Amino acid sequence: MNIHDPNVAVPKVTTGALPASRKVYCAPDAAPDLRVPVREISLDASSGEAPLPVYDTTGAYTDPNVVIDVEKGLARTRIEWVKARGGVEEYQGRSIQPVDNGNVTGKHLARNFPNTPKPWRALDGKPVTQYEFAKAGIITKEMIYVAERENLGRKTMLDRAQAALADGEQFGGALPAFVTPEFVRSEIARGRAIIPSNINHAELEPMIIGRNFLVKINANIGNSAVTSSVEEEVEKMVWAIRWGADTVMDLSTGRNIHNTREWILRNSPVPIGTVPIYQALEKVDGDPVKLDWDVYRDTLIEQCEQGVDYFTIHAGVRLSYVPLTANRVTGIVSRGGSIMAKWCLSRHKESFLYERFDEICDIMRKYDVSFSLGDGLRPGSSADANDRAQFAELETLGELTQVAWQKGCQVMIEGPGHVPMHKIKINMDKQLKECGEAPFYTLGPLTTDIAPGYDHITSGIGAAMIGWFGCAMLCYVTPKEHLGLPDRDDVKTGVITYKIAAHAADLAKGHPAAQLRDDALSRARFDFRWQDQFNLGLDPDTARDYHDETLPKDAHKVAHFCSMCGPKFCSMKITQDVRDYAATLNDQKGFGAEGEQNSSSLTREAGMAEMSEKFKALGEQVYVDAEKVKESNQSL
Amino acid sequence: MNIHDPNVAVPKVTTGALPASRKVYCAPDAAPDLRVPVREISLDASSGEAPLPVYDTTGAYTDPNVVIDVEKGLARTRIEWVKARGGVEEYQGRSIQPVDNGNVTGKHLARNFPNTPKPWRALDGKPVTQYEFAKAGIITKEMIYVAERENLGRKTMLDRAQAALADGEQFGGALPAFVTPEFVRSEIARGRAIIPSNINHAELEPMIIGRNFLVKINANIGNSAVTSSVEEEVEKMVWAIRWGADTVMDLSTGRNIHNTREWILRNSPVPIGTVPIYQALEKVDGDPVKLDWDVYRDTLIEQCEQGVDYFTIHAGVRLSYVPLTANRVTGIVSRGGSIMAKWCLSRHKESFLYERFDEICDIMRKYDVSFSLGDGLRPGSSADANDRAQFAELETLGELTQVAWQKGCQVMIEGPGHVPMHKIKINMDKQLKECGEAPFYTLGPLTTDIAPGYDHITSGIGAAMIGWFGCAMLCYVTPKEHLGLPDRDDVKTGVITYKIAAHAADLAKGHPAAQLRDDALSRARFDFRWQDQFNLGLDPDTARDYHDETLPKDAHKVAHFCSMCGPKFCSMKITQDVRDYAATLNDQKGFGAEGEQNSSSLTREAGMAEMSEKFKALGEQVYVDAEKVKESNQSL
Repeated sequence: MNIHDPNVAVPKVTTGALPASRKVYCAPDAAPDLRVPVREISLDASSGEAPLPVYDTTGAYTDPNVVIDVEKGLARTRIEWVKARGGVEEYQGRSIQPVDNGNVTGKHLARNFPNTPKPWRALDGKPVTQYEFAKAGIITKEMIYVAERENLGRKTMLDRAQAALADGEQFGGALPAFVTPEFVRSEIARGRAIIPSNINHAELEPMIIGRNFLVKINANIGNSAVTSSVEEEVEKMVWAIRWGADTVMDLSTGRNIHNTREWILRNSPVPIGTVPIYQALEKVDGDPVKLDWDVYRDTLIEQCEQGVDYFTIHAGVRLSYVPLTANRVTGIVSRGGSIMAKWCLSRHKESFLYERFDEICDIMRKYDVSFSLGDGLRPGSSADANDRAQFAELETLGELTQVAWQKGCQVMIEGPGHVPMHKIKINMDKQLKECGEAPFYTLGPLTTDIAPGYDHITSGIGAAMIGWFGCAMLCYVTPKEHLGLPDRDDVKTGVITYKIAAHAADLAKGHPAAQLRDDALSRARFDFRWQDQFNLGLDPDTARDYHDETLPKDAHKVAHFCSMCGPKFCSMKITQDVRDYAATLNDQKGFGAEGEQNSSSLTREAGMAEMSEKFKALGEQVYVDAEKVKESNQSL
Repeated sequence: MNIHDPNVAVPKVTTGALPASRKVYCAPDAAPDLRVPVREISLDASSGEAPLPVYDTTGAYTDPNVVIDVEKGLARTRIEWVKARGGVEEYQGRSIQPVDNGNVTGKHLARNFPNTPKPWRALDGKPVTQYEFAKAGIITKEMIYVAERENLGRKTMLDRAQAALADGEQFGGALPAFVTPEFVRSEIARGRAIIPSNINHAELEPMIIGRNFLVKINANIGNSAVTSSVEEEVEKMVWAIRWGADTVMDLSTGRNIHNTREWILRNSPVPIGTVPIYQALEKVDGDPVKLDWDVYRDTLIEQCEQGVDYFTIHAGVRLSYVPLTANRVTGIVSRGGSIMAKWCLSRHKESFLYERFDEICDIMRKYDVSFSLGDGLRPGSSADANDRAQFAELETLGELTQVAWQKGCQVMIEGPGHVPMHKIKINMDKQLKECGEAPFYTLGPLTTDIAPGYDHITSGIGAAMIGWFGCAMLCYVTPKEHLGLPDRDDVKTGVITYKIAAHAADLAKGHPAAQLRDDALSRARFDFRWQDQFNLGLDPDTARDYHDETLPKDAHKVAHFCSMCGPKFCSMKITQDVRDYAATLNDQKGFGAEGEQNSSSLTREAGMAEMSEKFKALGEQVYVDAEKVKESNQSL
C-alpha cells in the first residue's frame, strides 16, 4: 500500500517462489540463531532424486511466509549482530539536503523512505570491519553465515568433493572441499576475500567475494529519467536478484539519487555498490572541474550512513597516467575515469582521490564500506587492452590496496573491460601479483568489439574464462551495452548469461558442489523428466516456453523423447536400451564399467536374439508415438 | 515464379545487400578469371575511413546484379574447373526411387528440382580430390580461390600483420601473415586443411577449413514436418549464410529428404554436409537393426551424385566401445552414434561403417566428398566429458584418418559436445595428436549443462575457447538446443553467437586481419559514428533497433553521446578533450605517446587556463543537449 498518496496504484515488486522451489533456512552449528537461506528445487517424486539445494540470492521476496512491504523495508536483523560486537555508536547523522536529490522539488521529487533508520558508526579506535575482526582472529556472524551459505546446504563434505577438486584446475587457487567459518576468517584476514557489509545495511544477507569461493556476479541498475514510482526502482533490484545477481550496483545519475538509493537499500538483501563520484558530480552541476574534496567527502559520508556496502573509487587515475591514453583507439571509457582525468588535467593537479586516500579509508572503515578500487583507465576496445595506461593504474591500485588494508578496510579491485582472449589471463595474473590477491571484479571482459547487440555474449565468454582463472566477481553486461538502456528483459538476459559464466568457472575450478546441479539436470534430461529439466535450469520459464513451442501438450512433458529427433530417432531412448543390454551382459559376464572387452567378449547368441526382438518391439512402439506427435502438432 | 503450379505463391528467399554493404569480386593474380567475393562495408564519408572488406558467405543472394531464381539454381561455374582438370566423366547416375523420399506420394511429395544436372565422377585411377592434387603439387582453382578469400581483399601483407601475429597465441598453429595458393596447397597436402567441394556441387564458392585459416562455423537445418514449399527449405540455408554460416548441414529426416536436398544444393554457394545414415535409416523404415551395407552404400552414391560436400560418418563407434557408455550420466547422445550402437549390439557385429571403411573411401574419393568423421560417443553432459568411450572413439578416428588419406580423401574430425572449460584443451590437443592435425570440427562445446534455453551461450563460451586452441570449424548451437526446433530467429541468434566465437578465436590467435574490424568499429564508436558502428557489427539491424529504443531520432545517429551516460557524463566526449589537450601538450613539449612524464612535465599555466575555459564551455554545451534528449524521449 502506498500510504502517502492513495491515488497511486499499489506498489508491485515481484514475489513468489521460483518454479518447484522452496526456501529453506539453515542454522549453522556455530550460530544456530542465524537463518541462512538456500533454495531447494524439488524433483519428480518417482525419480527417487532428493531435492537439489542451490544458492539463493532472492531474499525474502521468494519466501511465502514473509509479507513484503516496500514501505517498511526488509527486517533489519543484522543490526543486532553489529551492536552485540560493540565499539559502535548510533548518532544523528547528516541531514538530507536538497542537493542530495539534485535540488528537485514538488512532484518530481521521489518520496523519501518513511522509516529511515539512524546511522551507526565505529567509535574511534574500535574495530568494526570484517577485515579488522579477521586479523584479530575473531569469527563474526557474517563469517559464519557465508560459510554456511557457500556450502549450499551441505552439513558435511561431500564424498566426492575431493575427487571433484582434483578434477578441476584452479591456477593457484585453493578451493576447500568444505567451507568452515575459520576458513572464511583466514581468507578475509589475508585480504583474499571480502564480505561487503556496511554496518548500516542491516537488511543484508551476507555474502563473500573471493577466488576460493563461488564466483559471484553483479548487476547494474540506475534510476529512470522520469521516476514514476520508487517501487519501480526497488523492483529493478528485486528482479536482478531473483535471477541470481549477488550484488547490485546503483549507478543512478541526475535527480532523486539519494531518495532512490534509500528505498533500494532498505529493501535489499544483497550488497549495494555505488560510484560516489557520480553523485558528487551532480552536486556541482555536472562539471568535473568544480569537484573538490569537500563535496566528495560529504557524499561519502552521506552514502556510508545510508548503508552502501561498497564504493567504486577511481583513485588510481593519476595525472601522469592520463596522457598515456592519448593514442588509444578509444581513450578513456570509464565514466569515473574520464571525470577524474578531466579534473586532473583542467586543474593540473594530482587526483584528490589519490591524495586524500588515507582520509577516504578512515571514513569508509568507520562503517565497513568495502573498497572497489575502480579501473578508470580500463580499455574500451580490444586494441587498447593491456596497455601501459591500464597497467600503470593497476599497479597504483596495488599500492592503494596496501594502504587500505593498513587502515583496516576490505578491498576488491575492478578490472576490464575489452580484452581479447589471449590477453585475459595476464590481467588476472598481474592483478593477483600487484594487489596481493585482493578479489578481482571485472566487467566482462568483452572478447571482441564487433557485435553490438550481443555484448552479453562477447563478454560472457571472457567472464567465464577470467572467472576460471581466479576472478572473484563478474559484473554483467546486457545486450544493450554500447547501445541503450537495458529493460527488464535485458537485465534478466544479462544476469542469466553471467550466472552461466560464473557456474562454468566454478565447474572448471572443481568446486565441490558445482557439478551436482549439472549432473541432476543431465540425469533429468536423460530420463525425460522435462519438468525437472526446466526447474533445474537457470531460467525455468524460458526453457518451458521454448519446449512448448514445439511440443506444447502436457502429455509431452512425460514423453520419453523430445522434438529434436522425435521418438523414432531418439538417441537417449536407444541409449537406455544399450544400458539395459549392457547391464544384462554385466550380470551374465561380470563386465566392469571400465572394461575394454573386444567384440568376442560379447557373445551369447540366445541373449542376443532375445535383445534383438526386444529392440524391434521398442522400435514399433516409438514409431506409433512419433505419429501421435505429428498429429498433436497439426491440431495446434 | 513457380512454374509447376500457378496457384502456389511466388517463392521467396531473402535477397538484397546487408546494410551499407557492397559485394566486390576480387580477381586473384594466379587466376584472374575467378571472381572471389568480399563484402565491403562503406563508412561515413566525413570520417576519411576506407570501406572495410569482410568475409562474405552470402553468395549471389546479396548481389543486386544477379537475378535469383530458385527454380534454376545458382550458376554452375565450377563444373568448368572440374572438367578442365580432366580425369572425370559425366554419366547417367542413379535414378531417383520412391524410397529416397520416404515413399511419399501425391500432394505430400516435394516437387523435384526442375533442372537436375547429370553427375560427374572420377575415372578409375585419376586424381580428383583436392587432397590428391595437393599431394601431387598441383594448385587447383579452388586453392587459389580460398587463398584470395582468406586474405579478405588484401592484395599484399598488411604492414601490421607481423606485429599482429606476434601478439596472438596460437598453441602451435602457424597462421601466415598472408595466404598464398601455395600455402593452401601445402596445408591440404599435409591433411591440415580441407576444401569441402564435391565435384557435383558446381554452385559452390569454395572455402577452406583448417587451423591456420579463419575459424569457420556451421549451421544445421532440417526439413519441416509439413513441407509447405521447397522454397522455404532453400530459405533456411539462405538465411543461415546471410548471417555468416560457412557451411550448412542438412539434417533432414522423414519424408522428402532427396528432393529437399536437391533444391538446397542447387541453390547453395556454401558446402553442404549431411549424415547419410539418417536417410539410410529412413529407407529401412526407421529400424536401425535393418540397416546394412547395401542400403548405406546406395545412399552414399545417391548423395555423392547430388553434390553433398561432406558426410558425417560414425565409423568410430565400434562394438567394443558401446559398453563403455553404460555407466555414463547421459549415455550416447549422438543420433548417428546411438543408431550404430543399436545396430552393433542387436546384430552382435562390428560396425559395418568401420569394416567397410575402405569401400566408403573409394566411393567418396570419386566425387571428392570430404569425411567428417563423426563422434558418435561424444559426451552429452559435463560429467561424461573426456571419458574412455569418447577417447577410445577419437583414437579410432585417428586410425581411420590415416586410411582415408591413403585413399586420397579429405578428412575432418567431429568433436564434442558437453565439456567443462578445464577439459576443453585436452580435447583439442588429443585430437591434433591422434588425428595428425586433421581439422577439428566441434559442437560447442557446452561448458555447463544447467542453462536450457541459453545453450548458444553455454556453448559459445566453449566454442570461442576451442577455436582459439586450434579448432577449425564450430558447429553452432541455437537457444532451442535440448528443447525444440529452432525457428528463424533462433538460427540467426545461433549463427551470430558463433560468428562471435569464431572471431574472438581469430583475434586471440593473432589473425593478421581480424583486428581490423574491431578497430574500425571501435573508432566508429569513439567518434560517435552510430551508423558505422551498426553497419560494422555482426548484426546491424539488431544494433540499430536497440539503439533506437532509447534514442530513436535520426538526429541522434550523429549525436556525440549515447544513451548510457547521456551527454553530460559522456566519457568518450571527455576523452576527446583529453586527447586534444595531450596533443597540445605534445606539440609544445615534444611528449611521446609512451612517455610516463610526471605531473611536473605538464605545466604551462597559460595553456592550462585556456583549456580549462574550453572544458567549461564544452560542459555547458553538452548539458543543453542532455535536456534535448530527455525532451525527445518524453514525446515518444
